[in-house]
Amino acid sequence: MSFDIIIHNGTILTVNPDFDIIEDGIVCIKNGRLERIEPRSAGLLIPEAVEIIDAKGGIIMPGLVNTHTHLPMSIFKGLADDLPLMTWLNEHIFPAEAKHINAETVRLGSFLSCAEMILSGTTTCCDGYFFEDEVAKAVFDSGIRAILGQGVIDFPAPGVPEPSDNVNKAVRFTDKWYNKSLMITPSIFCHSPYTCSEETLKKAKHAALSKNLLFQIHVAETKDERDRILSEKNSSPIKYLDSIGILDNNTLLVHSIWVDDDDIDIIANSGAKVSVCTESEMKLASGIAPVIKFLEAGIKVGLGTDGSASNNDLDLFQEMDSTAKLHKVNILDPTVMDAKTVFKLATIDGAGALGLDNETGSLETGKQADIIIINVNKPHLVPMYNPVSHIVYSARGSDVQDVIIAGKVIVRDQKLLSFDLEDVLERASLIGETIKEEIVS
Amino acid sequence: MSFDIIIHNGTILTVNPDFDIIEDGIVCIKNGRLERIEPRSAGLLIPEAVEIIDAKGGIIMPGLVNTHTHLPMSIFKGLADDLPLMTWLNEHIFPAEAKHINAETVRLGSFLSCAEMILSGTTTCCDGYFFEDEVAKAVFDSGIRAILGQGVIDFPAPGVPEPSDNVNKAVRFTDKWYNKSLMITPSIFCHSPYTCSEETLKKAKHAALSKNLLFQIHVAETKDERDRILSEKNSSPIKYLDSIGILDNNTLLVHSIWVDDDDIDIIANSGAKVSVCTESEMKLASGIAPVIKFLEAGIKVGLGTDGSASNNDLDLFQEMDSTAKLHKVNILDPTVMDAKTVFKLATIDGAGALGLDNETGSLETGKQADIIIINVNKPHLVPMYNPVSHIVYSARGSDVQDVIIAGKVIVRDQKLLSFDLEDVLERASLIGETIKEEIVS
Repeated sequence: MSFDIIIHNGTILTVNPDFDIIEDGIVCIKNGRLERIEPRSAGLLIPEAVEIIDAKGGIIMPGLVNTHTHLPMSIFKGLADDLPLMTWLNEHIFPAEAKHINAETVRLGSFLSCAEMILSGTTTCCDGYFFEDEVAKAVFDSGIRAILGQGVIDFPAPGVPEPSDNVNKAVRFTDKWYNKSLMITPSIFCHSPYTCSEETLKKAKHAALSKNLLFQIHVAETKDERDRILSEKNSSPIKYLDSIGILDNNTLLVHSIWVDDDDIDIIANSGAKVSVCTESEMKLASGIAPVIKFLEAGIKVGLGTDGSASNNDLDLFQEMDSTAKLHKVNILDPTVMDAKTVFKLATIDGAGALGLDNETGSLETGKQADIIIINVNKPHLVPMYNPVSHIVYSARGSDVQDVIIAGKVIVRDQKLLSFDLEDVLERASLIGETIKEEIVS
Repeated sequence: MSFDIIIHNGTILTVNPDFDIIEDGIVCIKNGRLERIEPRSAGLLIPEAVEIIDAKGGIIMPGLVNTHTHLPMSIFKGLADDLPLMTWLNEHIFPAEAKHINAETVRLGSFLSCAEMILSGTTTCCDGYFFEDEVAKAVFDSGIRAILGQGVIDFPAPGVPEPSDNVNKAVRFTDKWYNKSLMITPSIFCHSPYTCSEETLKKAKHAALSKNLLFQIHVAETKDERDRILSEKNSSPIKYLDSIGILDNNTLLVHSIWVDDDDIDIIANSGAKVSVCTESEMKLASGIAPVIKFLEAGIKVGLGTDGSASNNDLDLFQEMDSTAKLHKVNILDPTVMDAKTVFKLATIDGAGALGLDNETGSLETGKQADIIIINVNKPHLVPMYNPVSHIVYSARGSDVQDVIIAGKVIVRDQKLLSFDLEDVLERASLIGETIKEEIVS
């Protein structure tokens, strides 16, 4: 049998249920899927393949899974920092969005973000924003795997001047992309319990249920939000969402910082998943999500970067590092959130949080071939005692040498092959100049 | 006048007292020093120079200052993680040091660390370890600027089998390197108040005072240490060091996490400086230093990575990012530790903490030419609204394109020019294999 691609000469981190690590391994890909993952038998020849990739002693691992993004917002990264969430949103981001978010900026921002993610080893992302159809086209061209949701919010939004149309527009997006491509799975994304009415949330959840789609929502992100929902609904944000039928095993709760033990039980019992965006939550000073308790309760947790205007990057290697370290210092216990646990959050658990763990998040026979190769021949990665420790604590997104998604080589020797990045950088730079001039003037 | 090097076509972050940012600037270097830093006058030709470097629209800024390292420890990075400090030290690091630290491993580890630091934009570091003379030779060959101290500890240490000789050995090191090179400044490094007796500390401080050398010491790193000193000396670690004459404006207090308001006053009044190692302190779960209070009290604070066995990297870009974000989330205020403040910690304030701010840490006429150039033509750095925000929140060490130290080009287009990195990587990798085999067997 001839394979499409064979990768050899590297340490394979399978992230399979036994967390097998294969020191001198070989990965065989056929028709976009993983056919064989095994030690290279001594003396045996490498099987035939159209393309043979030498990992040069590096690490061969599943592509990373970013469970929360707002891809187009990369066009605004660094526009405003060091501000309270509401000032940042109301005085900077929302006005900038109202003025500058259109089909063209969304497309460019999405291409920028896809390039940043793919080049830093992310092969799956979960996004919610406006003009999501434009996001989808850019995502599709970039070659990354994605779950995408058109944003639902109860006030005029970019491309949705009439809030009463918000859920319908989101549903039309899911109709368009439903079962269209293995690479793009539509979803429903409601902004939050404080920006969507109960009616909107129920209608949107109903739409998600009708096609068995992931329902994404920001929730319990700040103390203010928690206090507001407590005051308005006489219940915590999580209890409120549960009471109106939002929580089930196809719900992704983003942030979930201001939750108590009862809320955690409710999430666990409902089967809902959580996306933790450590660096964004740190930068906006939203708080520290009780990730250790989530894991103890059996809740599936994935990592997200959030939009790059609030992080300000989309590098999941940094997110792993920060997540491990933040929880250690937060409870003064260096043994919690060890490298293996955090590595799984960024791979198989993230895939699980998105309901994609049958397809991606680990290197196992039959799964989609979503693979990255890490170049370890660098001073910050030599010597290597423990490849998992290196991935979480020492590696950077820029150590990613090759990226394969669904069996296609998307990055080869750090060069993005799927679209013209130079052209995107030039045009995004020009749009940035325009936005900057308007701010200054 | 002809210059040695001219850098043009970039945004200059001077970090001078007015924090001037020059959008299209030019930097002229002669005899290792900065001669001119100014806007490029429209229509004027670039002055003559032996070497002209085109920053290609990137950021031209002072090299970063790492105020606390243990350079040889890169040979152990990833050897043991996710453990309590004392378990990590006593069961892993100290035994590994006893067995494997010798002149050869120290030299290799130092070369590795210097390569990692320089390639990620650090041009000055402050180190303390054993076999420091070997460290010094590697540092000298690498071209980085450094303050170095031979470690003093009251038990047998690598290369110092007889503790009673510890201070003398440290003093001999300072004698050897005193006034020998502009690039290397000797210093005295005592490990901590719990591993050095009062007598040792006083003797070592006396030696530092006699030559006006920086005195470095780990202090108030863990709650256990604070409690132990409280119990043994009936005073906080800071008060204890103050009472025996250790604190003055040539003292660098490393960590200083477990300090109260009185301790902060004592530090401020003494003129002592603080080195904060955010990521190491997070990973070891030591605690969060009250950096905001230090700055309010007028204490000079620099950033350090600590040894790469406890971080596990030497990338100050990540350290800036983590420092800004950790303090925001710690007190739930996103306005504290803004990008500019943190950028200064990693440049001019770090230089000040080491007593080198007359020579480095900013781009000002007459200072040493310690300069790095950041390539911003990358998806995670386009568009650019605020270069300081980009440096702190979006850039990575791998975005450093060129590095100039003391007017010498040490990195050009991401290639290290000062020594044979491939050879060091190969030999360090082999040593790693040996150490790994011994651990497994």
